[in-house]
Formats: sequence, C-alpha cells, structure tokens
Amino acid sequence: MAIKVSEREIVQRRKRLEEVLSAEGIAGACLFSPHNIFYFSRFAFIATERPIALAWAFGKRPVLFVPLLEREHAEEACDVEVATYPEYPDERHPMERLADLLRDLGLEGKKIGADSDGYGGGYGYRGPKLSEVLEAEVVLAKDTLERMMAVKSPEEIELLRESAKWANLAHSLLQEYTRPGLTETEIAARAAFEASAAMFRALGPNYRPTRVGLPVHVGYRGQIGPRSAVPHAITTNARIRQGDVLVTGATADVGGYWAELERTMIVGKPTEKQRHYFELMVAAQDLALAEIKPGRRCADVDRKVRDFFVQEGIGEYWRHHTGHALGIRMHEAPFLDIGDDTVIEPGMVFSVEPGIYIPGFAGFRHSDTVVVTETGAERLTLYPRDLASLIID
Amino acid sequence: MAIKVSEREIVQRRKRLEEVLSAEGIAGACLFSPHNIFYFSRFAFIATERPIALAWAFGKRPVLFVPLLEREHAEEACDVEVATYPEYPDERHPMERLADLLRDLGLEGKKIGADSDGYGGGYGYRGPKLSEVLEAEVVLAKDTLERMMAVKSPEEIELLRESAKWANLAHSLLQEYTRPGLTETEIAARAAFEASAAMFRALGPNYRPTRVGLPVHVGYRGQIGPRSAVPHAITTNARIRQGDVLVTGATADVGGYWAELERTMIVGKPTEKQRHYFELMVAAQDLALAEIKPGRRCADVDRKVRDFFVQEGIGEYWRHHTGHALGIRMHEAPFLDIGDDTVIEPGMVFSVEPGIYIPGFAGFRHSDTVVVTETGAERLTLYPRDLASLIID
Repeated sequence: MAIKVSEREIVQRRKRLEEVLSAEGIAGACLFSPHNIFYFSRFAFIATERPIALAWAFGKRPVLFVPLLEREHAEEACDVEVATYPEYPDERHPMERLADLLRDLGLEGKKIGADSDGYGGGYGYRGPKLSEVLEAEVVLAKDTLERMMAVKSPEEIELLRESAKWANLAHSLLQEYTRPGLTETEIAARAAFEASAAMFRALGPNYRPTRVGLPVHVGYRGQIGPRSAVPHAITTNARIRQGDVLVTGATADVGGYWAELERTMIVGKPTEKQRHYFELMVAAQDLALAEIKPGRRCADVDRKVRDFFVQEGIGEYWRHHTGHALGIRMHEAPFLDIGDDTVIEPGMVFSVEPGIYIPGFAGFRHSDTVVVTETGAERLTLYPRDLASLIID
Repeated sequence: MAIKVSEREIVQRRKRLEEVLSAEGIAGACLFSPHNIFYFSRFAFIATERPIALAWAFGKRPVLFVPLLEREHAEEACDVEVATYPEYPDERHPMERLADLLRDLGLEGKKIGADSDGYGGGYGYRGPKLSEVLEAEVVLAKDTLERMMAVKSPEEIELLRESAKWANLAHSLLQEYTRPGLTETEIAARAAFEASAAMFRALGPNYRPTRVGLPVHVGYRGQIGPRSAVPHAITTNARIRQGDVLVTGATADVGGYWAELERTMIVGKPTEKQRHYFELMVAAQDLALAEIKPGRRCADVDRKVRDFFVQEGIGEYWRHHTGHALGIRMHEAPFLDIGDDTVIEPGMVFSVEPGIYIPGFAGFRHSDTVVVTETGAERLTLYPRDLASLIID
C-alpha cells in the first residue's frame, strides 16, 4: 500500500538531478526550500528562523544540514548524513558553518546548483547569501527542479490516488453532516476528525503525516451563501442556511502528496438561477477535462475555457485560470493558464477547476485532480460532479 | 473587546514607516510578504502562485495589487484602493502590471522601500525582480520593518492577551481529555474544536479568523513518550500510555495574533528521573523570566540559560535557544539567543521556552508568552507551570 515514496525513488531523483546539472558543469547541489528538501530526502520539518539545507557533492551521499534541535528527527530522513549547527543566530552564523560544510564536500571554487542563493527565511531570519560566504558560482536550478517535479512517477501517482480516496471519504462525511442551522466549523471539524481517524486506522502504524495536525483537511473555507462568490474566502464560521450555495474543499496527506477535491453543493431545491450557473460550471469543467492530453499546451486548455466564458456571456464572472499542477505542493507549475505554453505530458497532475463567481449571489466551482495518461486525463478524485448528487436535502 | 487591530492603528503604522523611510529619501513602499501586507492593511489571504503586493506613494492611500480572484476580498481590507490583474502567469506578467501601477503612483525613477526585490513566490511562481521591470532604486527595508514589528503597541498586546486566554482554555481541555489509551489526534481534535466553538461564541459575529480552518490549534505534535525528546516532532497519532512525558502546544488566532503556550505533562505518578528534569526545566525558565527586562540584551537571557545547562551538567541535552519574539508571525526577531545583541525594550513580546531533551527518554519544555514591561516581563499565558498541576491521573 502506498504511504510514502520509496527510498529507491528518492535515490533515483537525486541521480536524475545530478545528470541534468552535471551536464552544465555543476559539481553539487544545495537546496533550501522545505519542499525541495523533502522531495530529495523525505525529511518533513517545521520551517522556522533556523536555516535547513540539503547539500551534496555529486556522486556522494547528501548531507542534511540542520540546527541541533532537528538532529534526531533528521536522522530519520532517507539515506543522508546529518550535520548540525548549534542554533540561529548564534555567535557564528549558520551560513558560515554551511560554507564550511560545502568546503568539506569539495565544492569551493565549483559551480553549485541551488534553489536560491541562501536561505529564503521569513520568521525574522537574516543572513548572507550563499555566494557571499563561499567562493563558488551559485547557479539557480529552480527551473530544472520545477520541470522534474512536474512529471510524476508511478509511485507519486499512487500516492495522489490514495490521497484522493481519503479526500473522497472526508467529502462524503462533510456532505452527510451538512445541515441548515449548523456552523461550518462544527461540520468540517467532525468530518476532518473522522476521516483522519479512519485514515490512521486504514493506513496502519507506519503511516506518518508530514505536517502538524490532522492529515485530512476538509471544509468550506468561508464559501457559504453569497460568500461562495469569494474564490479565496477564509473560514468565518458561517451558519448553513436553506438555499445556500456552498463551495467545499478536501485533501489528505499521503506521504506528503495532496490531491485536491472541491465541490459546489446546494442546500435545498436549487433555484433556476443556481441550476443554470451550476450546469455552466460543469460544462466548463467538461471542456477542460476533454482538452487535457499529451501534446496540447497548458494554454490551450485555459483558452477553451475562457472562450466558453465569452461565448456564454459570463466573462464578468470569470476570476481565475483553469487549474494548476500539484503534488507535494498544493499549487505548482505548470498552470492551466493562457500564459503557460508548457506542453502537457503523461504523468503531469493538474487540478481542473474553472469557477463562476457572481458577486453578491454565489460562486460555483468543482475541482478535480487528474493525471495525464497517454491518451487523455484520468480523474483521481471520483466524487460525483452532478447536481442531483450534490443537493443537501 | 479586542478582536482586531483598529483602522487608526493601521494608518499610524503606515505613517511610522513613511517617516522612517522618507528620512532615507525613499518615496514609496512596495511590500510582498503576506505578513507585511497584513500588518499594514489587515488583509489576510491565501498565498499562491499569484503575486500580491501593497504599494503606495508616501502621502497617498495604499493600493492593494491583487489577482482578480481576490478583488471582492481585498476590498474588505483596511483603508486601501484595490487594483487587480487578471491572472498569473497570463499573457502579460503581473509584475509588468505592477510596474505600471508604480509608474501611475509616480514612483518611477524614485527610491522604493520594499521587503524583497519582487515576489518571493514558491507555488511554482516565476517572475522578474521589481528592479527589472521598473526604473527605480529598490531599497530593502526588511530591517526597518522587523524593528517596527518587534515593539508591540497596547492594541497588539491586548490581542496577544486575548489569544493567550483561548490558548489557556484549549490547553485546559487538552489536559482534561488526555487519558492513557487515547490517541493524540482524538484528544487534540476534540479540544481544538471545543475551544474554537467557545471562542466563536464568546468573541461574537464580528470575529474573523485570519487563516483557513479552526482558529485554535492545540495538541502534542508527536511529542509523546520517548518522542517528546524530539523538539520539532510531527504528529504521529501516538497512543498515550501510562508513564509518558508529553509536550503540548496551544495557540489561538485573535486578529492575526498568536500567543504561544506549551507545557510538559506527565501521565501518572512521575518517576524521580522525570521529576528531576522537569524541575530543572522550570528552573531554567524561571531564570530566563527573571532576566527579561528593559536594557538587558537578548543574548544575556540566553547566556544565563546556557550557563545553567553547563553548571547542571546537562549541556548534552540542550537543543535550542531560550525563545523568540512573536506576534502576527509565530516566530520573529529578535531572538533570545547568545548571538542576538538586541536591547530588550518595553512592548517586546517573547516566547520563553528553554527545553531539556534526553534522546530515547523524554523531553521537557514549557513555553510562555511574555510582554516586556517597564520593569520586567509579564506572563500572558497564565496556565500553571508546576508539576503537581500537570500530572494526568
């Protein structure tokens, strides 16, 4: 059962990065982003003011460079050495110590492939660039990393498929518990807890979440009634009312992979107007789903949807592109957007979620996670999409 | 009742930033970090691949530059104009449109104070630097911002006090529900939900969380039994057992401010060894609490604690500095760390949390949030710290 990426795959990923970067004369890698570190080591951690890096000289075993408080935790990561520094800021800056490590790895004077020239920080962090503490040429390899991550392996697709399954369960519970008079948080908290508990039991004792808190997230994020028209609303603890349009979301952490499932539901018998926009939204999603196949460009998919909006005379209710890639990040490149010319390839995974938002009335959006196959797009999120299945009565 | 920072204070903050930066010949500001945008506009949003910025020419009203999908949401922010762009990446890059806006604001050819030279991104975002799309001198004002945010106003302190109250409630429930045989997630989910529900009822309909999900976070984050020795463990859904040492955490979102409350609890009658390290940890925290006062340096506080570890012969169990500032970010500068020479001032708010971690045995850490007064440090988190109060029996 798929609960995390195998050690073998982690090692292959590093090899692949080494091959691409070596061809550019790059001698080693130094990664600072938590997602990139996770991708190449399976080490999931709480980011703080303390820099963490995964560094290696190509051909050698990677070193996880961590503050002392992460030592034992880092030692559980996949096939790495662990080097620690005492603390940040400390009397000697961690970046100085990282430079020592890179020197020990023989990377001084060499080209180093990095995802940023130093720790991105936040959390009040201040520090020098990597290129300021080490005589080396820091080559930004963000595009290479982004391209590698865009095409998912069979293992990654299995994890996303497993994630979608628990998102489906969570969404079923959410729908079942949704009743007029209840608040969004009581419904969502119950569904999230029960789905998480089921997931822990089903996936067994070796299953580990990669983030703090419940591994299943589900709820409405404030998109209730007229506020469903605010695409990125935030939880308000609204009370569900008869006649409300609801926009939901559900996802679950399986080995650090998160499928995306969103639905529009209607409380009680839909009005003609609600039904009209609901059906238009589903039609836009159908269009997009049919357009996703190898060889097409991301822009083509979004163009189809944008044309549909114009043709139906609902351009003023358009608010965002058709979708985005996803995997260990909830949003990643490429984007199903008229500005993204990336050619779609088998193994890419996208959210497909054209939305219609009528300010003051309601918003309508389904989001499904699909994997690109040799011939088209396979939906991983199998929750029903039709109106009859999404009425709360 | 304090549930958010007043509009008046937001306006004063901008004025203060304008004063400091104007003195350096800077004509306007452009902020990209979600925390900085929130600090100067009260606009809380879900960060994605789409850049968001708060920009203004000094003396004029700020403009929130957002993707179309945030339009209605951004219009709820505090005393701002809203300018939208269609989407990212779109056929014209949002940074080009931001440059247009800054030109309209008369900032071309001027010095602009920014928190970074472009959108920091993540989420697959790619884009040019601000200085690449606009003829202007981009001056990084991160230190100025950090210093401003480090000293809290009376309003901010009231919000943190209110936050601490709900963290206390959540922790009381967590402790009450903790029983051998139960899993960490069932206890934590129940406590988080009940505390959140109480908070929604008590703070009234105008209270709004600033993040998705429940506004109260509480739990053990995997620090259960021997794994309590891993300072930044992640949830594992461990089952509580007789004899376990537990390290907890609780916080609540009040107007975007989050106090930090953590406790060490012991399940059943403590052993001598457990009692010994528990008391040492409390003594270290007492030392730190007594040392925090205006005029001392952050480094002095941490030095006291580090000396204590050496003197007690437990240096090998030291894993991290004494604490960090906090406010709208859960960690921020300055740090109670031997490497931070910042002079402590009234209004600064710190976590105080020296920890003792014995690998394979247990970890011991309380964390309290304190505000620096004219004469010392006042604890905002009033949960009991003594062993007798923290035994689960």
